[in-house]
Amino acid sequence: MDSIIKTVAKQSVALFRNKYTNLAFSVLAAPALLGISNMALAKTVVVSSPEKQIVVELTDNNQGPQYRVLFQGQPVINDSKLGLVFQSLGEFGSKFTIEETQTSKVARKWQQPWGERQWVIDRHNGLSTKLSNGKYYFYVDIKAFDDGVGFRYRVPKQADLNQLNITQELTEFSIDQADKATAWWIPARGWNRYEYLYNKTPLTKIDRVHTPFTFKLDNGVHMSIHEAALVDYAAMTLDQRRDGILRADLTPWSDGLKVKTHAGFSTPWRTIQIANNATGLLNSDLILNLNEPNKLGDVTWVEPGKYVGIWWGMHLNENTWGSGDKHGATTDETKRYMDFAADNGFAGVLVEGWNIGWDGSWFHNGDVFSFTETYPDFDLPEIAAYGATKGVRLIGHHETSGSVTNYRKQMTDAYDMYQKYGVTQIKTGYVADGGDIKRVDADGIIRHEWHDGQFMVNEYLHSVTEAAKRQISINTHEPIKDTGLRRTYPNWISREGARGQEFNAWGTPPNNPSHTTTLAYTRMLAGPMDFTPGIFDLAPKGLDAVNRVQTTLTKQLALYVVLYSPIQMAADLPRNYAKHPDAFKFIQDVPTDWQQSIALAGEVGEYVVFARQERGGKSHGNDWYLGAITDDTARKIEIDLDFLEPNKRYEAQIYRDGDKANWRTKPYDYVIENQLVNHKDKLTLSLASSGGTAIRFKALNKR
Amino acid sequence: MDSIIKTVAKQSVALFRNKYTNLAFSVLAAPALLGISNMALAKTVVVSSPEKQIVVELTDNNQGPQYRVLFQGQPVINDSKLGLVFQSLGEFGSKFTIEETQTSKVARKWQQPWGERQWVIDRHNGLSTKLSNGKYYFYVDIKAFDDGVGFRYRVPKQADLNQLNITQELTEFSIDQADKATAWWIPARGWNRYEYLYNKTPLTKIDRVHTPFTFKLDNGVHMSIHEAALVDYAAMTLDQRRDGILRADLTPWSDGLKVKTHAGFSTPWRTIQIANNATGLLNSDLILNLNEPNKLGDVTWVEPGKYVGIWWGMHLNENTWGSGDKHGATTDETKRYMDFAADNGFAGVLVEGWNIGWDGSWFHNGDVFSFTETYPDFDLPEIAAYGATKGVRLIGHHETSGSVTNYRKQMTDAYDMYQKYGVTQIKTGYVADGGDIKRVDADGIIRHEWHDGQFMVNEYLHSVTEAAKRQISINTHEPIKDTGLRRTYPNWISREGARGQEFNAWGTPPNNPSHTTTLAYTRMLAGPMDFTPGIFDLAPKGLDAVNRVQTTLTKQLALYVVLYSPIQMAADLPRNYAKHPDAFKFIQDVPTDWQQSIALAGEVGEYVVFARQERGGKSHGNDWYLGAITDDTARKIEIDLDFLEPNKRYEAQIYRDGDKANWRTKPYDYVIENQLVNHKDKLTLSLASSGGTAIRFKALNKR
Repeated sequence: MDSIIKTVAKQSVALFRNKYTNLAFSVLAAPALLGISNMALAKTVVVSSPEKQIVVELTDNNQGPQYRVLFQGQPVINDSKLGLVFQSLGEFGSKFTIEETQTSKVARKWQQPWGERQWVIDRHNGLSTKLSNGKYYFYVDIKAFDDGVGFRYRVPKQADLNQLNITQELTEFSIDQADKATAWWIPARGWNRYEYLYNKTPLTKIDRVHTPFTFKLDNGVHMSIHEAALVDYAAMTLDQRRDGILRADLTPWSDGLKVKTHAGFSTPWRTIQIANNATGLLNSDLILNLNEPNKLGDVTWVEPGKYVGIWWGMHLNENTWGSGDKHGATTDETKRYMDFAADNGFAGVLVEGWNIGWDGSWFHNGDVFSFTETYPDFDLPEIAAYGATKGVRLIGHHETSGSVTNYRKQMTDAYDMYQKYGVTQIKTGYVADGGDIKRVDADGIIRHEWHDGQFMVNEYLHSVTEAAKRQISINTHEPIKDTGLRRTYPNWISREGARGQEFNAWGTPPNNPSHTTTLAYTRMLAGPMDFTPGIFDLAPKGLDAVNRVQTTLTKQLALYVVLYSPIQMAADLPRNYAKHPDAFKFIQDVPTDWQQSIALAGEVGEYVVFARQERGGKSHGNDWYLGAITDDTARKIEIDLDFLEPNKRYEAQIYRDGDKANWRTKPYDYVIENQLVNHKDKLTLSLASSGGTAIRFKALNKR
Repeated sequence: MDSIIKTVAKQSVALFRNKYTNLAFSVLAAPALLGISNMALAKTVVVSSPEKQIVVELTDNNQGPQYRVLFQGQPVINDSKLGLVFQSLGEFGSKFTIEETQTSKVARKWQQPWGERQWVIDRHNGLSTKLSNGKYYFYVDIKAFDDGVGFRYRVPKQADLNQLNITQELTEFSIDQADKATAWWIPARGWNRYEYLYNKTPLTKIDRVHTPFTFKLDNGVHMSIHEAALVDYAAMTLDQRRDGILRADLTPWSDGLKVKTHAGFSTPWRTIQIANNATGLLNSDLILNLNEPNKLGDVTWVEPGKYVGIWWGMHLNENTWGSGDKHGATTDETKRYMDFAADNGFAGVLVEGWNIGWDGSWFHNGDVFSFTETYPDFDLPEIAAYGATKGVRLIGHHETSGSVTNYRKQMTDAYDMYQKYGVTQIKTGYVADGGDIKRVDADGIIRHEWHDGQFMVNEYLHSVTEAAKRQISINTHEPIKDTGLRRTYPNWISREGARGQEFNAWGTPPNNPSHTTTLAYTRMLAGPMDFTPGIFDLAPKGLDAVNRVQTTLTKQLALYVVLYSPIQMAADLPRNYAKHPDAFKFIQDVPTDWQQSIALAGEVGEYVVFARQERGGKSHGNDWYLGAITDDTARKIEIDLDFLEPNKRYEAQIYRDGDKANWRTKPYDYVIENQLVNHKDKLTLSLASSGGTAIRFKALNKR
């Protein structure tokens, strides 16, 4: 039977290529032999992207619906299963046939309140297909963009369908020629959530992985599987079945069910980004385009910007979160940081360890935390008042250690209190081992959930919408992965969800030289990350210590441009910035909100070059910024400056690795030099081992 | 708090070592600081093995019970969590305290109807500890042997405890110095069940693994974690949490629950084998000792023995399972095999593809199978009658392709029919991808289950007990892993549950040279395996083909001794045995039931040497047999023959690799030579790359 279905599929593609060059949609039918003696029609519907880069086919057959994806005429996803399994009904999809289709053609642009670019273009062809077994029905919605595909299941309200528990999603991704593909991945369902160094292996060697899951086919096509608009559903991880066949593996509730829902739901969009090269993945807005528009109305109160904080000292063991002689979060220390912030152009000061609960054993024991009671040496009203005089805001902090019921109980009081004192951003934390989020259910029974199960997906969003009511933005640490919900809830301003800078203080082990060059093509496809760059004392314990930063100093600068976040921390201690005031200038200058962004060059895990144009620049136009980073390998990269505005001169303020720089022994060897350039010029960037280049292209008055 | 608990534990060990050298049990109590302000008693109970090789400590504390294990005075399992999670109650164990203990001291031997040895010694000290939270209680039963530990949870019937769904087992195994340990493993919850090549990696690199899970500490201590007496419960796999902390991960039902049970249940025994060297693991009867005695009464009808079959020809594509010109299972062909069996001393002839259903698409579609209707060219009555005249039995075959409801419906009729025709053994098959066992529930809904979930655990055993009623033995392929239930149900005569010989015909890829040298220390710890050795045409498609056997010919002989099974197939085609009648003699001679067995030498994955003494030998005493196999590395191994009976002469009939033998280019270079030996002699075995030595020590009349 398989072979006949495949014949059908090939016919349909052939038809598409020959005849449908001006038609985005087609419906084809051909007989397929089912089992030994049954004859039935297998119907195939097709949608192609606006510029015909991508074709998606959906076929029904007795085994259930299947889809496949072609990129520039070549299959990249082979026939792959679709469907859901409900506890009450079993497989939903099997023996369903295509009943009707609805098409759409979209070309529009929409504006981001903040982001990598002000205007996002959404151009796609849509195909909604109704599948029915006579009794029940559901839709598969497909959106074909030129840089990828999104599809989802939609199960409307209908007779005899009410409460629905999903026990499995049948969605598969059958990668074409997977045996020759290379993948970059972190393990799913592990104790450390998303905080792993990335593995690079043959695709067929993966087991259970998180998304975004990025891989490269033998022919150079780069792809990344992820999801968009994860709301009231479990996160999708991928589990390898037979070689190269990845199956959606939904993170379960503590009782083993995957999703608890009811008729009238849609799944998140399952997304497949596809590009001819690595940077193609980075220049895509697919995930954002598959999210719902802003639901919060006016969000001018959501403010991008840079911040400093009482934080790195704790990771270096110079200070403590808990009370005592080394307590970091004191009124005096906060004021000193506010002074530093005001003097250097930072909008906020994050203070961790200000609230009762940090003394004693709090890990996996987050019920000890109060979110409204300060330590006696932290005077919130006084600090708020002081900040107001300085034009610097306190950034709030709520560490739950995964005790979410305890957090929920105090949430409105805690947010109210912060609102009262002018706190407009809160960094939340959910430090707990994976699977060990603690909730207390209605019967008073303690349940342990995953950070990426449906319960927590809803819990994280609840915190964001509660905060929005108070014009507070949320920066979630130990979060659910990003799926583009910042479009719908622009106060979800950043999050963690990968190994950040703190691992370099711990050295367990530190992030390796290829960590950030891999993040750019994996984690960062999901959305902004609060990585907290800008460490200048790269080896407080010495260059040979395990707990050190494995980069050069200028790579730390370049990260501000490479790893996008609307809020960026200058993570190091003020005294360390004082040692390199010339380099610190770049951190002072670099904006965190962009008019546009372009990934110029790169290879996954090896290097990446980003150029971004400042949004709302004040002087003679919008300056451009460039960040380039490399892995362990030193390299020269020639960059065409044609992204610059044609009729302008720019002063390129270049922060680069010195000629002898390398992260191991000479991380502080850097050069700062200026150069006049215009859009016809080329620049050759020279990056040391785990080095970087950061450039401000300052727009000049006239040419 | 952790550190104080640890202090308690250390004290108790110290006490044990100093004072309790003649006492197996002790109960210690010491104050432990709980949280910040609570004081409570953490109580520790201790049990040691009869020769004090192993000490197990059980401690209660507010977080729930913990255990640790010491081997020869050194910790091998550090403080590790215990407990269950019930859907209705949450964590069961947390805040339970030790209420009472009961000890036992056992030293007995029991007889196997068949096995690696006739007499099994069971010597252990038992400690049952009642833990209670005032409302509910349960027991942790521990049995400390000198070669390992078994423990289980026992939840008796009690007030307010009825139906219980287990959502998680909290059992952990915190391996001491895991960062330096090496592990051999196959992935759990994969599509190919247990049929993977083994990985050898640092222990900390494992993800989700099956048991038996074998590993080696840096100090040479070898350990293997498994379970015994898996009945009406889900199989335990192991999931790595933080480095070296393995957590029991029960295989779920299709609805996500792990186990559906009720008060009055015991879990399987969680087992930890511990030995100073690799062969120590092989000479242990721990798993059998933790199973219940024979429940079937007289089982003299369970007959070990060798068999041939219409099987390998299908894997070579010379024959088909389905009907047609190449149909293997014909009356004539079966008679020819019966002639061959009778002429060469084989007890049975397996015939696959005799029943209706093989034509067309049967994979994952096992409802097509009839287990009572033969193909027209297979005359069961005639074959049975013919076999009776020859003294050769037909061996039955039931392939379900995982459609277990279809099998259940026909089971009694099918077993009755086989019984009627004198069939006393059935090879059953459950070929289906992992997680794709198809059952139809009471509501007519199709559910997909795992081979190693609770549903299938019960289904496999049901087939065994139904067969027992008809004096039929079962050889399960695509089985649930073995956990020693052959002791309780001796008609569960063998099973597969690992990559067998057929992968060498398929070449997908073939089993590598270290596969069987790894199986010996991993899969084989669980129990007998129907590996089907004895391929003589090692490369039907040529030595360079991918689908070939990666061994020498004498390694195939040695496998009969190394890989224990009471039924052993001579898997190759008769015409290939005719080419090497001298080597075939060993297969004719080698028995499949043993008086005793000794692993003489070996290292995991590298090599292994077994000596086994025939049970019920007929001539001048019980002959000994030896099998030695090696991985890719050729090696010489000196063996002391002190296992032979002291006052006897033996003719050592040695089947060894020739001097130029190697599996790649000269697999057929073998030498057969005889030598007179006695128990004072030594023999140097000379094994080629992926070679082997097989020896029959024939007991002679007098010295």
